[in-house]
Amino acid sequence: MKKAILIIAALFSLTFAANAQELSNAPGPVNSPQINPDGTVTFRFQDRKAMKVQVTGDFLPAQIVGRQEVQGVADMKEGENGVWEYTSEKLAPEFYGYKFIVDGVTIPDPANLVVCRDGSTLTTKFLIPGDRADLYAIHDVPHGTVSHVWYPSPVAGFNRRMVVYTPAGYETNPKAKYPVVYILHGIGGDEDSWITHGRAAQILDNLIASGKAKPMIAVFTNGNISQQAAVHQTGNGYIHQSTMLPKTMEGTFETSFNEVVNFIDKNYRTIAKKQSRAICGLSMGGHHSLYISANNPDEFGYVGLFSAAVGVTDESVSPMYQDLDAKLAKQFAGKPFYFIACGNSDFLFQANKSFMAKLDAAGYPYKFMETDGGHIWKNWRIYLTEYLPMIFQ
Amino acid sequence: MKKAILIIAALFSLTFAANAQELSNAPGPVNSPQINPDGTVTFRFQDRKAMKVQVTGDFLPAQIVGRQEVQGVADMKEGENGVWEYTSEKLAPEFYGYKFIVDGVTIPDPANLVVCRDGSTLTTKFLIPGDRADLYAIHDVPHGTVSHVWYPSPVAGFNRRMVVYTPAGYETNPKAKYPVVYILHGIGGDEDSWITHGRAAQILDNLIASGKAKPMIAVFTNGNISQQAAVHQTGNGYIHQSTMLPKTMEGTFETSFNEVVNFIDKNYRTIAKKQSRAICGLSMGGHHSLYISANNPDEFGYVGLFSAAVGVTDESVSPMYQDLDAKLAKQFAGKPFYFIACGNSDFLFQANKSFMAKLDAAGYPYKFMETDGGHIWKNWRIYLTEYLPMIFQ
Repeated sequence: MKKAILIIAALFSLTFAANAQELSNAPGPVNSPQINPDGTVTFRFQDRKAMKVQVTGDFLPAQIVGRQEVQGVADMKEGENGVWEYTSEKLAPEFYGYKFIVDGVTIPDPANLVVCRDGSTLTTKFLIPGDRADLYAIHDVPHGTVSHVWYPSPVAGFNRRMVVYTPAGYETNPKAKYPVVYILHGIGGDEDSWITHGRAAQILDNLIASGKAKPMIAVFTNGNISQQAAVHQTGNGYIHQSTMLPKTMEGTFETSFNEVVNFIDKNYRTIAKKQSRAICGLSMGGHHSLYISANNPDEFGYVGLFSAAVGVTDESVSPMYQDLDAKLAKQFAGKPFYFIACGNSDFLFQANKSFMAKLDAAGYPYKFMETDGGHIWKNWRIYLTEYLPMIFQ
Repeated sequence: MKKAILIIAALFSLTFAANAQELSNAPGPVNSPQINPDGTVTFRFQDRKAMKVQVTGDFLPAQIVGRQEVQGVADMKEGENGVWEYTSEKLAPEFYGYKFIVDGVTIPDPANLVVCRDGSTLTTKFLIPGDRADLYAIHDVPHGTVSHVWYPSPVAGFNRRMVVYTPAGYETNPKAKYPVVYILHGIGGDEDSWITHGRAAQILDNLIASGKAKPMIAVFTNGNISQQAAVHQTGNGYIHQSTMLPKTMEGTFETSFNEVVNFIDKNYRTIAKKQSRAICGLSMGGHHSLYISANNPDEFGYVGLFSAAVGVTDESVSPMYQDLDAKLAKQFAGKPFYFIACGNSDFLFQANKSFMAKLDAAGYPYKFMETDGGHIWKNWRIYLTEYLPMIFQ
């Protein structure tokens, strides 16, 4: 037995060293981030030659620079062997993101394997479970299946990629049919964003397991109509950089959405009717949800706008954006459940207030949730956990 | 029209800035890596304060340090505005990985979004298409579905996660049945490794689309029996670090494998018989493939050992590892297709030669592929592209 352990340990270290040939950056000797028993978190970064190391993350209080809310920054302190360290205040439960700033250069924590990509940004992450953030954790509950699926999009002119969540039991109950929620990302994201930063699969698993949400299929599309798929899954060269992708928010994605719904209704066991179909989205995805549902008033029984990009649309770019008032009149005659959520320091907060004033003036009912904070994933996860239990009930 | 573009551009920059609040490291001002028309690649990293910046990657010739093969390192040169640069030789087509070493600290390229995790290591990657590496690229061919699926494992004592690839057409041909290949990772990896570093979904898509491989289901298990799933998808706290996970290579995973096969045969439209079932794996996954197939001689018509960890097993730790010669005799009486591949500078090359000598002595037929190089993903991708066209024919 001891001999086997020695042999396997040798193999492991050899394999690890061999991997290191190609992979070269195994987790370093420091433990970072370390979640302490008292609820503080210690960040560590080893660099003997650095002059200054800082940590920036959404666990630090935001700073106001000019009129812009900017993520807080804290200095780390150098200790023995060039290990820089910073210990936070006691942190509330949340799925946090952070980076190090080493002599002015911002890098992910190389000791942390939990890296989430959101469109064109990478962030190292950690979860402090508890309270609402328990919904973001992986628990010992039945888990749904998360599939990356390609579908034909004649409107786009090529096949495109989406993510489909089927709830636990989908495979073992071959006659069961399910409602469908379409969950859309923002302008900086893609079909993966809600799964990574949004923890949507965990939220769905946990809400369904506790009986707070109905078992449902969830569909995560790519709202950048020029892209086939997320970066390094796309064949047509359109990867995200810090420039706009062509055709974004010009109505083409909204026009193509019937292709998505038809594909899902054809390939999955859905309840293919309005009262079993919901849509929601964050920022640009809120804009998409607004126009897709307004242009298809008989399709969606539930609409959710999360920090939605309302009030920024030029009608001239697409028929999808024209005659919104008449379209809303028809949509609201069908009594949809309409949910609007926004943070009160979001740069889109006033635009959402204006949109709600328009709904108020027309006497259209909706439910509004105001939170603290701005245009951030923390809020979008909150809105999703609020929205899902309200639909299909 | 112009107005809409201005509004949307403003929204985009606002959203981007807002994301930056949380995400803080959007791709920097440098373009890296840049694949040049002449086949060279330019790497860039901006750091005004660094004293020395280097690049290390598998595109550089390996160095021999002592008896160990170590990844090559090249110095980058500082230019204007603190942008450090290095341009490679003309590179052969391949899916390369690399990192920067900034004053001795190894970090991923912060300008590159293509980050692959392999167990506990992160690497930034780039693909130079062409030749065999065209199989690793995304082409305009029908794409299979890649699903993350949870299955019950009574042997492990909890639910576990696997990845299932169903070929294009699986959903639209509801009566078709498919052969299944089980593709296993190494000791430093998990169920995601073959999808990320291995480019297995692209290889399957491309080989199937060209008619070189049969349409097949592919299953990627997690061979670390203590883990429910890959890091940050696991609920039981066992994440990879540079230490061994409990119960690894003690026969438990091999014992549990019937649970995997039964789950797949129950939940997917498989041809559930030996001649339509294949297994293969790299390193520890080769060890697993050897023992799983030898212990279940009527289950697998095709076996592939890629740089397999053979000759390191202590019989005393598990009945799965005992009486191998008798098990192989029974297995080879059933005339499996047996494929062994190894790099001639792999630290397991001699162990594989010894294993083949044992097969030779017993008169058991197999096909052997020797390549240059060591225990690296480049070779494992090659072996997979060779193996898949040979099975189910």
